[in-house]
Amino acid sequence: MNESAVKPVKTDEKRVALLGFGTVGSAVAHLLHDQKFEGVRLTHIYNRGIARKQGSDRASGLSGDIVWTENIEDVLNSDANVVIEVVGGLHPTGEWLTRALASGKHVVTANKQLIAYHGAELSQLARQNGVSLVYNAAVAGGVPVIPAVLHGLQGDRVRQIAGILNGTCNFILSQMEAGADYHDVLAKAQAAGYAEADPTADVDGFDARAKLCILARTAMQVGLNPDAVPVQTIRNVRLVDFHYARDLNCTIRQVARVESDGDTIRANVGPTLVPHTSPFAWSHGTQNLVMTTGEFGGDVVFSGHGAGGNPTAVAVVSDLLAVAHGSASPLLPVQDRAVSREFVAPHYLRFVVQDKPGIISAISGALAQVGANIDSIVQRPGYPKDALPFVVTTEPCSTTTVQQAVHTIGQMPTMLEEPLLLQMMREPEGD
Amino acid sequence: MNESAVKPVKTDEKRVALLGFGTVGSAVAHLLHDQKFEGVRLTHIYNRGIARKQGSDRASGLSGDIVWTENIEDVLNSDANVVIEVVGGLHPTGEWLTRALASGKHVVTANKQLIAYHGAELSQLARQNGVSLVYNAAVAGGVPVIPAVLHGLQGDRVRQIAGILNGTCNFILSQMEAGADYHDVLAKAQAAGYAEADPTADVDGFDARAKLCILARTAMQVGLNPDAVPVQTIRNVRLVDFHYARDLNCTIRQVARVESDGDTIRANVGPTLVPHTSPFAWSHGTQNLVMTTGEFGGDVVFSGHGAGGNPTAVAVVSDLLAVAHGSASPLLPVQDRAVSREFVAPHYLRFVVQDKPGIISAISGALAQVGANIDSIVQRPGYPKDALPFVVTTEPCSTTTVQQAVHTIGQMPTMLEEPLLLQMMREPEGD
Ligand SMILES: NC(=O)c1ccc[n+]([C@@H]2O[C@H](COP(=O)([O-])OP(=O)(O)OC[C@H]3O[C@@H](n4cnc5c(N)ncnc54)[C@H](OP(=O)(O)O)[C@@H]3O)[C@@H](O)[C@H]2O)c1
Ligand SMILES: NC(=O)c1ccc[n+]([C@@H]2O[C@H](COP(=O)([O-])OP(=O)(O)OC[C@H]3O[C@@H](n4cnc5c(N)ncnc54)[C@H](OP(=O)(O)O)[C@@H]3O)[C@@H](O)[C@H]2O)c1
Repeated sequence: MNESAVKPVKTDEKRVALLGFGTVGSAVAHLLHDQKFEGVRLTHIYNRGIARKQGSDRASGLSGDIVWTENIEDVLNSDANVVIEVVGGLHPTGEWLTRALASGKHVVTANKQLIAYHGAELSQLARQNGVSLVYNAAVAGGVPVIPAVLHGLQGDRVRQIAGILNGTCNFILSQMEAGADYHDVLAKAQAAGYAEADPTADVDGFDARAKLCILARTAMQVGLNPDAVPVQTIRNVRLVDFHYARDLNCTIRQVARVESDGDTIRANVGPTLVPHTSPFAWSHGTQNLVMTTGEFGGDVVFSGHGAGGNPTAVAVVSDLLAVAHGSASPLLPVQDRAVSREFVAPHYLRFVVQDKPGIISAISGALAQVGANIDSIVQRPGYPKDALPFVVTTEPCSTTTVQQAVHTIGQMPTMLEEPLLLQMMREPEGD
Repeated sequence: MNESAVKPVKTDEKRVALLGFGTVGSAVAHLLHDQKFEGVRLTHIYNRGIARKQGSDRASGLSGDIVWTENIEDVLNSDANVVIEVVGGLHPTGEWLTRALASGKHVVTANKQLIAYHGAELSQLARQNGVSLVYNAAVAGGVPVIPAVLHGLQGDRVRQIAGILNGTCNFILSQMEAGADYHDVLAKAQAAGYAEADPTADVDGFDARAKLCILARTAMQVGLNPDAVPVQTIRNVRLVDFHYARDLNCTIRQVARVESDGDTIRANVGPTLVPHTSPFAWSHGTQNLVMTTGEFGGDVVFSGHGAGGNPTAVAVVSDLLAVAHGSASPLLPVQDRAVSREFVAPHYLRFVVQDKPGIISAISGALAQVGANIDSIVQRPGYPKDALPFVVTTEPCSTTTVQQAVHTIGQMPTMLEEPLLLQMMREPEGD
C-alpha cells in the first residue's frame, strides 16, 4: 500500500526522499528528526544494501513512517517532491537527478563533482520544470558561502575568489607548518578519516578545483570546465619549504583561486605562499576559508568547518528549507570560458643543488632572460653543501614566464631535483 | 503630470524610491546606475534640502528620469513599490516606513537603531501587507552575515553569536594595540570620518548593541530589548592593559555577544580580552567580524568591511534584488526575552595601587569570599610603586560574582582608581 494513500498529502508540504545514508545522509535524517521543521517530512531513505543501513545504530530513533528502500524507482516514482542526494559521484547520481528534475521534483545535493561538471545543464533542466536545484553543501560544507554570495553579494560584481577549499590539504599543510612530516600527517589524516585511502583528489587539487568551478559559476557567473583549470600537487612541498616560507613571513596553504577583469579569466589550484598577515595563514586544521573580492564592496572572508556529517547536514537542510520557502535557484551560465594561467604574482623558487660557484649567477641569468626580476635570495645555514636547498623569490611577474626559466634552470647539471615553483599571495591591504 | 502616466508601468518591475542621499544613499544610486539590474528602476530620490543634493557632484551621471524631491509625500503617494531608507534615526523614519509598508511598499533599510527597537513590529506589518522588510545593511555593512544565517544556517540552531560590530572601536583598539594613545586615535578616527564628533554611540557600545539585538532576533529567534543588554565603555581601557593582555597572549577588542542554552539568554557588549589564537584578535582597522556557533554546524566566521558607502550599498542593493526576486522576509519574534548578565568566563582585573604589603592578600581574600579562584597574578616591571598597575586573572566564574568582589576591592584605601574588570574570551577549540 502506498503511504500517501494513508496520509492525505498536504499541498504545500515538502515530502523529502533522501538518497544515501552515509556520513552526511544519516546526519541529515537526524537533523530533520531532531528539529521537526514545519512543512517538511522525510518520507523515503534510499541506499544500496538498505537492510544493513536500516539495522545500523544510525537508523535508531528515526520516524517509523519512513520508507527504507534499495530500489531507486521507489523514490523516483514516489510522491516525494524533494530529493536530497548525498551519495556522491557522477554516475548513476547524474541520471537519477536528471529524472527527478524532469519529473518535477526539487533537488538538493552535496555532490561537488556532479555540480562542477553538470551544474549548468541541471540548473537549466530545473528551471524548465519549475523546480529548484540547490547545492550549498557542495562547497565548503558548513560554511554558507553560496547562500551569502547569492543573497548578500548579488549587488556587487565579484572579481576574485580565493579559497582554502580542501580540509585534508589544510590539515596536512598546517601540521607540516608545525613540523610534521608529509607522509606521517597523511597517515594520521587517513586514520582520523579526514583523508581517503587514495588521497589523489585532495592532495593533487581535483576536489578543490571542482569547488572553485562551482563558486566561479555561482558567484561570478563565469562558467569553467574543471578540466581546463591547472592544478599543482602539494606532494612536492617539503618541510624545508615551510622553513623558508617562515623566513619570508609566510606559510604554505593549498589555495584555489579565480580572477576576472571582465575579459580574461584566470584560475588555478595549488600550494601557495600566503603571508602571515593574511587570513589564509590563520586557517588551521581541517577548516575551509573563502575570500571574495567585489568591485564595490571589497573583501569578505568566510570560514569554518568545510566538512563533517553535521556541518554538511546543516547546509543540506538549510537548502531544503530554502526550497520549502519557495526561494528560486540561480540560473548558471552554460557557456564555459577559456582559462588563462597568466597570473601576475611574486614567485617562490626552491632549488636543491650540489653547491658550486656560479650557480646563483646561472639562475639569475635564466630569470633575467625571461624578464623576471629577483626580489630575494635566501639560504638558511645548516644544510649539506652536496644537497643544498635554497630559495629565490621574484618580483611580480607572469607565472608562465617564470615556468620557462624554471624549466631551463631544471636542466642545469648541478640541480639535484626538479625545482619547486610556487605562487606567492600578496600582503592584504590595510584598512 | 505623474511620471507613471508617461512611462507605462511594467507589472513585475520594481520602482525604487531612495530616502536619503548621503554616504550610503548616493553610493546606492550609483551602484544601481552602474550595474543596470534588470527589473529594477530608481524613480525617486528624497532628501531634505534636495537642491543642494541634486546640484552636488554625487548627483552627476545619474539618470535624468529620476524625480528629486524634498517632500516625503511625493514618495509615499507615488507608484514606487520599494522604498530604500538610508536616512537613519528613529524619527521620522519610523513613521515613513510604517506608512510605506501599510501602503504595500517593500522596504529595504540600513537603519540599525530602528530595526533593533522596532524590527519585530515592522516585520509583522510587512507580513500583514504582503510585502518584505529587509535590513542586511544594518549589521556589519558589507559583510553578508544576515543573508548567510537566513539562507545558509536556518537548518541549525544558532546558540551563540559573538561579534566585532563597531568599526570605530575596532580601529581605536587595534591602533592602541600597536601603541597609540586612546585620545590620539579617537581624534585620528574623527578626522578620517570613521568616528562621529560625539563618539558615545560607538565607544560606549550602543551601536554594537543595536546590531547584536538584530542578529539575535534574526539568527536565533531571540527578541531582545537593546536597553536590557548591558554595555561597558572602552574609554577606561589603557595602553597598560594592552601590555598586560599581551603577557596573557591576548589583545583587547570590543565584543558584542549573545548566548542561549535554550532557557537563559545572556548578552553584553564591552571591551574583552581575546586570545591571539582567535579570529577576534586578527581583526584590525575598521573591520567587522561575526562568529556564529550552531548546535550542529559549529563555528562559522564572517569578516570584512562593516561600513563605508560602497560596501553598505552592496548590502542594500543585494536586499533590493532579493525583494525583486520575490524572496520573503523573515518573521521576527515579537516577545522580548529577559537578559541575564551571568556569563561564566575567566576575568581580567586591573588595579592601580599605591604599593603596600598585604595588597595581594586583601585582593585574594575578597575574591575568595565570593568563590572566585585566581588563575594568575601579573606585575610587569618598570612602573612606579606609588601608582602601580597590576593584573589578576580569575578562573572561569560568573561575571556578577567577580563584580561584587571588585566592588569591595575598589573601596580599599590603597586603590588609586576604579579597578578595570574585563571578560576574557576562551581559546578557540582546535580542529
Ligand atoms: N562527508 C563530508 O564531510 C562532505 C562534505 C561536503 C560534501 N560531501 C558530499 O556528500 C556526499 C556524501 O558524502 P558522505 O561523506 O556522506 O559519503 P558516504 O559516507 O560514503 O555516504 C555515501 C552513501 O551513499 C551510498 N552509496 C554510494 N554509492 C551508491 C550507489 N551507487 N548506490 C546506492 N548507494 C550508494 C553509500 O553506501 P555504502 O555504505 O554501501 O557505501 C553510503 O551510504 C558526497 O557527494 C560528498 O562529496 C561530503
Ligand atoms: N555609512 C555607513 O558606512 C553605514 C553602514 C551601515 C549602515 N549605515 C546606516 O545607513 C544610514 C545612512 O547612513 P549614511 O552614512 O549614509 O548617513 P549620511 O551620510 O548622514 O546620510 C543621511 C542622509 O539623510 C539625510 N537626512 C537626515 N535626516 C533627514 C531628515 N530628517 N529628513 C530628510 N533627510 C534627512 C541627510 O541629509 P543632510 O545632508 O541634509 O544631513 C543625508 O543626506 C544610517 O541609518 C546608518 O546607520 C551606514
